[in-house]
Order: sequence, then structure tokens, then C-alpha cells
Amino acid sequence: MSEINPVLDHVDAGLETALSELLDLISIPSVSGQIADGTGVRAAADWLAQALGAMDMDARVVPTEGHPVVLARSSGHGTGPRLLFYGHYDVQPAEPLEDWHTPPFEGQVRDVDGRRVILGRGASDSKSQLWSFIVALRAWRAVHGAFPAEIIVMLEGEEETGSASLAGFIDRHRDELACDAAFICDSDMWSPTQPAITTRLKGLLHERVVITAPNGDLHSGHFGTVAANPIRILSGILAAIHDADGRIAIDGFYDGADEVSPALRAKWKGLSTAEPLAGIDLAGGTPEPGYSALELMWARPAIDFCGITGGNQGPGERSVLPGSATARFSFRLVGRQDPERVRGLFRDFVRARVPAGCRVEFVGSGSSSAITTREDSPYVAATARGLEAEWGEPTVMKGTGGTVPVVNMISDGLGADCVVVGFILPGDAIHAPNENYDTDRLHKGIRSWVRVFHEVRKLNP
Amino acid sequence: MSEINPVLDHVDAGLETALSELLDLISIPSVSGQIADGTGVRAAADWLAQALGAMDMDARVVPTEGHPVVLARSSGHGTGPRLLFYGHYDVQPAEPLEDWHTPPFEGQVRDVDGRRVILGRGASDSKSQLWSFIVALRAWRAVHGAFPAEIIVMLEGEEETGSASLAGFIDRHRDELACDAAFICDSDMWSPTQPAITTRLKGLLHERVVITAPNGDLHSGHFGTVAANPIRILSGILAAIHDADGRIAIDGFYDGADEVSPALRAKWKGLSTAEPLAGIDLAGGTPEPGYSALELMWARPAIDFCGITGGNQGPGERSVLPGSATARFSFRLVGRQDPERVRGLFRDFVRARVPAGCRVEFVGSGSSSAITTREDSPYVAATARGLEAEWGEPTVMKGTGGTVPVVNMISDGLGADCVVVGFILPGDAIHAPNENYDTDRLHKGIRSWVRVFHEVRKLNP
Repeated sequence: MSEINPVLDHVDAGLETALSELLDLISIPSVSGQIADGTGVRAAADWLAQALGAMDMDARVVPTEGHPVVLARSSGHGTGPRLLFYGHYDVQPAEPLEDWHTPPFEGQVRDVDGRRVILGRGASDSKSQLWSFIVALRAWRAVHGAFPAEIIVMLEGEEETGSASLAGFIDRHRDELACDAAFICDSDMWSPTQPAITTRLKGLLHERVVITAPNGDLHSGHFGTVAANPIRILSGILAAIHDADGRIAIDGFYDGADEVSPALRAKWKGLSTAEPLAGIDLAGGTPEPGYSALELMWARPAIDFCGITGGNQGPGERSVLPGSATARFSFRLVGRQDPERVRGLFRDFVRARVPAGCRVEFVGSGSSSAITTREDSPYVAATARGLEAEWGEPTVMKGTGGTVPVVNMISDGLGADCVVVGFILPGDAIHAPNENYDTDRLHKGIRSWVRVFHEVRKLNP
Repeated sequence: MSEINPVLDHVDAGLETALSELLDLISIPSVSGQIADGTGVRAAADWLAQALGAMDMDARVVPTEGHPVVLARSSGHGTGPRLLFYGHYDVQPAEPLEDWHTPPFEGQVRDVDGRRVILGRGASDSKSQLWSFIVALRAWRAVHGAFPAEIIVMLEGEEETGSASLAGFIDRHRDELACDAAFICDSDMWSPTQPAITTRLKGLLHERVVITAPNGDLHSGHFGTVAANPIRILSGILAAIHDADGRIAIDGFYDGADEVSPALRAKWKGLSTAEPLAGIDLAGGTPEPGYSALELMWARPAIDFCGITGGNQGPGERSVLPGSATARFSFRLVGRQDPERVRGLFRDFVRARVPAGCRVEFVGSGSSSAITTREDSPYVAATARGLEAEWGEPTVMKGTGGTVPVVNMISDGLGADCVVVGFILPGDAIHAPNENYDTDRLHKGIRSWVRVFHEVRKLNP
């Protein structure tokens, strides 16, 4: 324990400084989707490059087609394996402003029910996340005169707007980014006391379907009994997508949707759904039979109806037979399901149900495969041990129904083992007013990283 | 023929005067739904009351909760049966103004392809309609010194906004309005050369259905496999409303939806659908089998999906499981179907398909029964003969999928035989820019009324 205890002590002693710096970072309004000139995003990038440079990393702000990436490397100052740390420094817009109790871009610490809580946009998502591993790296270097491994830090400024420039950036900088393992630090804990690593992420694609009748809007009284109604056609298609059991009725949809192993299923059975389903009422849902809620959420594919629009949208009634109707879908895929193949099957299924004389138009976007990170990766195991050592509870290997495209980009683009980890909790109000983060979690998060470094170093003695 | 020919001659001689007066009336912007202070509507009411007063009727503008009604009576100046004439002097808004070739509220006559055409908002719907019977009455009185019968004129100022005040007005003035027959003059011809009386009108009710899940909007990736999706529930309900044959699958819905008699069916078989379906493409429709298009349009009930809304409506994609979804319906009823009973059956049908834990809310509006006016009414027969004498072609007894609530109000409220008639044609661009009306049709419309008066007088010699 000789290499780690002095670093933990250093972290404990420097916590107030780290906190104060974090409040400065939160005070920079790095909203990626809103402020057209990018001033705030650029200021946050500069701030971070300066902080990384001050700890003797080779740090720079790299322009992209969109917002810049902060790229820092420990060239010549690290030993052992190459580890990449990913975080994002952009934030969601703060609106509605009137619902905030403190100014969103004025990082503050307040006492809330006896806890010290950081308040401000980005407090949880994701400035505390990236600041935790930066401070841990800084402390390690301060104590030992070198980083715990060869380190690459990649901080994105477009995560909240869809990471449009990141794949190209990774492709252009693949030599600089080559690594043995990548830590994607934008994820959540299992509970306020139990850490987690997310090992299963679903794939994603979006589809929009527009059904158009041969006429424009018609008088429903005159023509409702004889002419095509796109809302009726569309609702018939939507109703056919799931069978009576709640399974998707598109031939071939489930191809490659691998079942989880009996061992993993047994492990998940031991987990309570209290945390992932906190505050959610499942009444009225139509879950596919034969699966637990966690299995459905983490390992079963879905076609979700995310939007529908057609005909009269006004305040009053209007007897209209609409000329067109639109539905929007998100597909969540698992295992080896091929997103573009699924898209093709879906479009064929829809086309077969559009009557002659009506048109269907598809607008497709997004497309990423599901990812299951290797649970047997030594880096995952080492991270789990490090987290457990800090929190005193076993690390949950969890899944998510969400999609984190950067994991695909790094896994596919760099061929590195990915460790998706973080300390966010549902109560942090991410993307909402009064976003917050407990200072204890900041403290233990930084300490967690120190312990993870230590465990990773043991892999490569 | 001695009583009628001098009146027709008088009409012919006075046509240019009548036309010039009509242009003045069209120039008054009596938009009922748009101009908050009602100045234009009130000005048109005053103009008409003055015109009716000038022909020695007892005419006045009667206030209502909404726009006023012009009420005129021939007290002491008519003989024979009491005949009520209904028209409406309010018009639709003229927007989009940029699509008009002449100012909408500047009545003009232009040569169009060798025809003299009246242009302006209300030219067809419905200022020419009401002006035709007023000019005919005026001519009769000028020639004979008395009206052709005891006459009541009721001109509404809220038809284009739903006739909200009319039922109450009729109820409050039932003694003054009591009549043997009512001519509802806001309907169309069968073709440019063939007159029509509308004897079947469908009933109407509107329903709005809102399905709400127990949660607000959720992340579709996280909860799509387990939580309720109101769009999915709603589309399932919509898809269940019609069976595979296109019939409505709600038990009891067709109760009272009387079939037309074999004789009427045979008569309708002889009619071409060229006029009522001009410009309409029926491809993709799901007509109830066993019925002709005219039978479906005039005599079969329908539930039409007029609007649907739920979840993401924005320009981009959003992975949302929406908290609620809404659909809007218009019901068109026939025969003895009871609107409120149908509403109840529909609500029960929907409720039975809303899963426990989700809520359904209904917003109902409108409600009128179907009406079949008596084709064997002597007033209908007399009107048919009068029209036929003027146009030289048989009068078509037609139906409509539309609903004209004033027919119910007068039929139910006053117990009078209703004759629904008029000279509108599909090409008149009613409710649209460049609304127009042929001066020949104005001329023959006025002459038609003279002939109808004559035929009605023969019923009561």
C-alpha cells in the first residue's frame, strides 16, 4: 500500500482546492447546443487544456468541424500501459432559468440537509466526472513524480449535441489515441453507496415514417367513408409491429439478438430493481414475456414509438381527413443485431402495409450497434476491484438501455478495451434545473480513480 | 302562367341592379371568426335589414350572445302558407390574401373565358345564395303587390363559426319563426346544368381521446421495453376500431343506421359519381364492402381519425417515451343512430382497451343526429318542379356526408319541412382565395326561386 496511501492523503488534503477549481469550471457556460459563437465551449476547452498543461501533460485544444476536443498526453512522463480517459466538458442548456435556485453558471457549494452539495449546470453531467480523474492523475504525479501509466486524456465538447465530430477526430488522431484501455467516464453508480461498471450498451437507430394519401386534406364528412386516411393506415402499421404477447412481429428482427448466458441471468436475478426503476411506474407496460425487468432493460431489443403527428393539431375540432401522417421511432438493439439490416426489415414491413395509391417516405438517422464490453477484460476487473476498495460494496456489472456512441467509436475505431464508469446518480437532476453533485461523491470519486490506477498497475508490474 | 311570366321578366330586367347591390354586399367584410369587434358582420346585418325593410318587410337586426340575426317578416303583406328562408351573411376569413387576384372585399365582375363572373369573399358562400331569394321575393312583390306567401327571412351571422347562438335564437323566437316549410339556402347543385335538393344529411359528433401513462416523458432507451407507451396504446385502439373488412367493430355502433330502401338504392345507382368525386382519388381507401361510393358517402356512418399527436414533434429525433398521446375523431351518423349513445359506446370501447395504470380522458363536442328530409313533402316536390322548369333537367335528390346543424335546429325546433337547396358548385372556391360565382347562375338562381314560389302556391290554391 505504500504507493497508494500517500496519494489518497494528498487527495484528501487537496479536496478544497479541487472543489474550488471545479466551481470555476462549472461557471463557464459551455453549452454546446445553444450559443452560436461557441465562446463558452471554447473557454472551457482552454481552461481544461491549461489545467492539464499545468500538470505537465502535453495538452492542446484541437479544432474539429464542430466544437474542439481537448487532447492531452503524458508523453515521456508515464510508464506502463497506455490508458485513455474520455470525458465531455460541454453541457445542456440551462433553461428554464426561472426554476433554478442558484444561477446555473455560477458554481456554488451549499449545505442541503446536512450534505455539502455542488450546484450548477454540469455539476454532475459531466464536469465532476472528468475533473475526478484529472485530479486523481494530478495527485498521483505530485506524489510519485510520474503518472501511474502512460495517459491520454480526450475531452469532447459536443457530447450533448450528438458527438457529430468525434468519429472523424478519432480517425484522424488514431496514432495519438492508440491505447490498451479506455475509461469512458460519463456513467452512473448502482446506488448512492454501490459502484457500477456498465458493460452492456444497446445499439440505436432512428426512423421516421411519413404516409401520404393521394389527395391533400379532405373534408372528412364528404370523403371519410371512401378515401384513404393516413392516420388510419399509420395506426394500423404501428399496431402490427408488436404481437399480442408484446414481441416484435417483424420477421428476422430478433436475428442476432443474443440471449444472455444462464450465468449472467442468474447474476442479474440477484440484483434489486429498486435503484434503476426508482420513481418509475411500470403500470400499463407490455413487457415481452419470459424476461425480468432488468433483462428487458439491458438485453432485449425494442422498437419505441417516440412521436406521432397527423391532421388537426389546433385548439378546436376540424373535420379533416388529413393528407399525411408521420411517426417517429427509436430502435434499441442488442447483441449482434445489425442496425442497417433491421432498418431494411422495418421498411419492408411498413411498405407491405401501405395501400397502393398512397406513398411512404422514410427518414433514417443514427445507427450504432450494441456493445458488450468484455467483462473478463483485466481492465474491467481491475476497475471493479478499485471501486470496491473505495466504496466497500461489490461493483455491479450493469447494462443500460441507453446508447453511448463514443463507446462504439473507441471500441471499433481504436480496438481498445472500454471501461464505462462514473458516479452520476438519478437524483443529480442532470439536464434539468438545479443540477447537483454531492461533494462526498466528488471526494470518493477522485479516491476511486487512485485505487483504480493502483489495481491497473498491478496488472503490469 | 300569367302570374309568373311578368315576375321573370321583371327579374331579367332588374338583373344588373341586383348584381350591383350584391357587389356592395360582398364588399362588406363580414368575417365572423376573425374581426373581434364584429364591425363588418354588423354592417352586413344592417345592410340586409335595410334591403328587406325597403321591400316593405318588417325587418330588424336581433342581437344574440354572438353575432346578430337578421329577422324579417311579411306581416300583413303575404298570403297562403308561411315559408321561412334561411341564409347566412357571414363569411370565412380571406387569408391567404396574397393568393387573391382581386381584393377579397371588393366585389367585382370580370370576364373569365367568356363568362361574367362575380369575384370576392362570399360570392358563392353564401351571399349570392341569400340574395337570390331576396331578389326573387322583391320582384314578386313588385309585380303583384304582395309576397307569394307569408314570408319569414332569417339570416345568420355565425354559420362559419359553428352557429353557436342559433339554437337559442330559434328557441326564443319560435312564435315568430313558426312556418310550414323552411328553405335552407346554402347547398349545392348536382352539376353546372342540373339542380339538386339535399334530402339526406349525416349526423355529427366530435371526440378527443387523451391517453396518459403513469409517468411523464421517459427516456425510451431506458424504459421502452418495460413502461407504458401512450402512442402504442392509442394506435392499438385506433387499429381496433375497424375490422379487416373496413366495418366499425364497436358493438352496437350500427344500431339505427338504417339501410336505404331498394328503390332509393336503385335511383342512386343511376347517378354518376363524376360530379361529387371530381378531383378526388380514392386509391388507398378502405370502403365498407357491399355499398356503392354514393351510398357510402350519403348513407353509411363513419368514424374518421381527424388528428393525432404524441411525443416528439420537433425537427430532430428525440428518444422519448411520451407521457401522453391524443387522437381526434369526427363521427358521421345516419338514420336513427343516437349521437350520445354512439359516444357512450365509443368511450366504453376505448376504456376497455386502456391498460390499468394508464388514464384516458375524453373531450366531447358537437352532437347532431342525421336528418332525412321528407322526399314526399309537397314542398320538396314543388321545389323540385320549380328547379326543373328553370334548368331543363331533372332535380337530383342527393345526400351529403356533411352536416348542416341549422337543418336539425329548424326541423327539430320548429317542426317544419326543410328544403335544403342552393346553387353552389365545387369550382366556386368557397373558403378559398378567388371565391367566385357565375352571373348566369345568379340570374337563373333568382328565376328558380320565382318558379318555386309559383309551384308552392299551386299547393295552396
